[in-house]
Amino acid sequence: VTRANPTGAPLVAVVGPGADATDDLCALAAQVGRLLAERGAVLLTGGLGGVMAAAAEGARDGGGLAIGLLPGTDRAAGNADNTVAIATGLGQARNALIVRAADAMISVGGSWGTLSEIALCRRSGKPVVCLRGWRVLDGAGKPVPLDEAATPEQAIELLASALRWAPAAD
Amino acid sequence: VTRANPTGAPLVAVVGPGADATDDLCALAAQVGRLLAERGAVLLTGGLGGVMAAAAEGARDGGGLAIGLLPGTDRAAGNADNTVAIATGLGQARNALIVRAADAMISVGGSWGTLSEIALCRRSGKPVVCLRGWRVLDGAGKPVPLDEAATPEQAIELLASALRWAPAAD
Amino acid sequence: VTRANPTGAPLVAVVGPGADATDDLCALAAQVGRLLAERGAVLLTGGLGGVMAAAAEGARDGGGLAIGLLPGTDRAAGNADNTVAIATGLGQARNALIVRAADAMISVGGSWGTLSEIALCRRSGKPVVCLRGWRVLDGAGKPVPLDEAATPEQAIELLASALRWAPAAD
Amino acid sequence: VTRANPTGAPLVAVVGPGADATDDLCALAAQVGRLLAERGAVLLTGGLGGVMAAAAEGARDGGGLAIGLLPGTDRAAGNADNTVAIATGLGQARNALIVRAADAMISVGGSWGTLSEIALCRRSGKPVVCLRGWRVLDGAGKPVPLDEAATPEQAIELLASALRWAPAAD
Repeated sequence: VTRANPTGAPLVAVVGPGADATDDLCALAAQVGRLLAERGAVLLTGGLGGVMAAAAEGARDGGGLAIGLLPGTDRAAGNADNTVAIATGLGQARNALIVRAADAMISVGGSWGTLSEIALCRRSGKPVVCLRGWRVLDGAGKPVPLDEAATPEQAIELLASALRWAPAAD
Repeated sequence: VTRANPTGAPLVAVVGPGADATDDLCALAAQVGRLLAERGAVLLTGGLGGVMAAAAEGARDGGGLAIGLLPGTDRAAGNADNTVAIATGLGQARNALIVRAADAMISVGGSWGTLSEIALCRRSGKPVVCLRGWRVLDGAGKPVPLDEAATPEQAIELLASALRWAPAAD
Repeated sequence: VTRANPTGAPLVAVVGPGADATDDLCALAAQVGRLLAERGAVLLTGGLGGVMAAAAEGARDGGGLAIGLLPGTDRAAGNADNTVAIATGLGQARNALIVRAADAMISVGGSWGTLSEIALCRRSGKPVVCLRGWRVLDGAGKPVPLDEAATPEQAIELLASALRWAPAAD
Repeated sequence: VTRANPTGAPLVAVVGPGADATDDLCALAAQVGRLLAERGAVLLTGGLGGVMAAAAEGARDGGGLAIGLLPGTDRAAGNADNTVAIATGLGQARNALIVRAADAMISVGGSWGTLSEIALCRRSGKPVVCLRGWRVLDGAGKPVPLDEAATPEQAIELLASALRWAPAAD
């Protein structure tokens, strides 16, 4: 069943590559989406394919809502598991909208678009947890610390801890 | 019950004054929201008070989803009947986002913000139906035609006709 | 000569119809653009043709700067008299960007896009002066007051008064 | 002298840290801004302090134009060397606007905001050259190639080559 009242539920973005996402990444994203839904979070994604579609499918399987913020102007470009697709017409500026609207973010895999979202999220001071992503070195070659998780379960735990987010009551 | 799968449902914006909306306008907006939900549409609003809150309350009563696109950066500014509140941080540019994302619009009452949304909707060629709104005269003093409805029921009928939108199956 | 340092100069938007603007409107817009430039203002427009191009041509003739905020992603769509064209890729949301960035606005003629800009400007409380535009009636059929000017010179005077803007020193 | 007619000139973004930029980075940015102006480019920045202000100062010294796209709603937050400051009110979504509007980008130094701009620029396929910036490793720990320059002069040469941009005629 879809939860009737997610008001007050955390809004968590899951970001990652679209069409060129591997099956492995999609499987991780689906599991992340399911776990988020089961804990009562609302999923926010870029609304397209690959990691975005897999996360939305997981959220649906978990009985949750998936909102897709599409870059283009055609709602039909969204994946079939979006509960609601919002065609923003903002192009890549919709990445900033995702970060702005979300309480926290989980990235699955790496791409330039994903990196822009991680960077904007860090810039804004919101929690972001990375699964299988790129890494960043500062000018002196030292790693810039990111919260990295090895599994979807660990990603959710790290996020819940950062958000001081207790599990949904059953 | 909240509908489990609104994918493919029309996304209809209801716009109108916020804090200074009269009780009459709010009653109309609540009825519009309820009728839209009962027909299976997803409601899109600016997420704040007055007409926006009343429409969301109606959508909830009708078992539908209400997405609120807030102008500011704080999700807590949204009304309590938003199913999901998206804090866009875009200021009044979120009006254009509402128009962009919606398939059609119903305006309830008049204000400068509402007029901007009607104008953008007409600019984009999408159907817009006005309940109790302002009117516009061209440079020669002739009325610029708008689709005006006398009741919420008539507004929905005009909209459904423009969208070639059949009633939801029961 | 182009002014070397417009920092602190008022940023004034001139808005109006594009491709379907009449010659009369374009002549008015060109005069508005020239007068603004001669008083030291920076011109802001939507960067396309018609009223926007005429205003930019006037600003150039008056030795001023014209910034065009285009809706699309291709800078080449801008008119040839933009000093700088900014391809925003925001679609009609760029109308809100024009209003946001400007200190005040002059509208020349009427169209749905223009009306959206007037409405957003009024919503934001910034001065807007209308030359040959549409008029608005409230729900009771009473005119909603707008600052209307009969000539470009009068439009500038009304604007300067609203901005408490003294003429540029020679 | 300020160039009277930059229509057709490349629009080059210079991005980098604001208030916490070191003196070394600011000196590099000023030199980049000056060289861009001397070659006839229009400078685009985020309009604030640090690297942004230094680049604008350099552009002014080189007789060019500097457009600042500010994140906030107050034009007065811009640095004193912006030729024109555009208060976008878009928050960090203005980073995407900078990338969208620019033909190419030079980053000076590293920060999360800067990294978001580099990533969006790479995502869009536009040339970006990095001076003293962060580096990125893919999931396997291999460096993701970026065009890196050792000096402002080399940054301009790399950019000009990528844009097939001949020096301005004197």
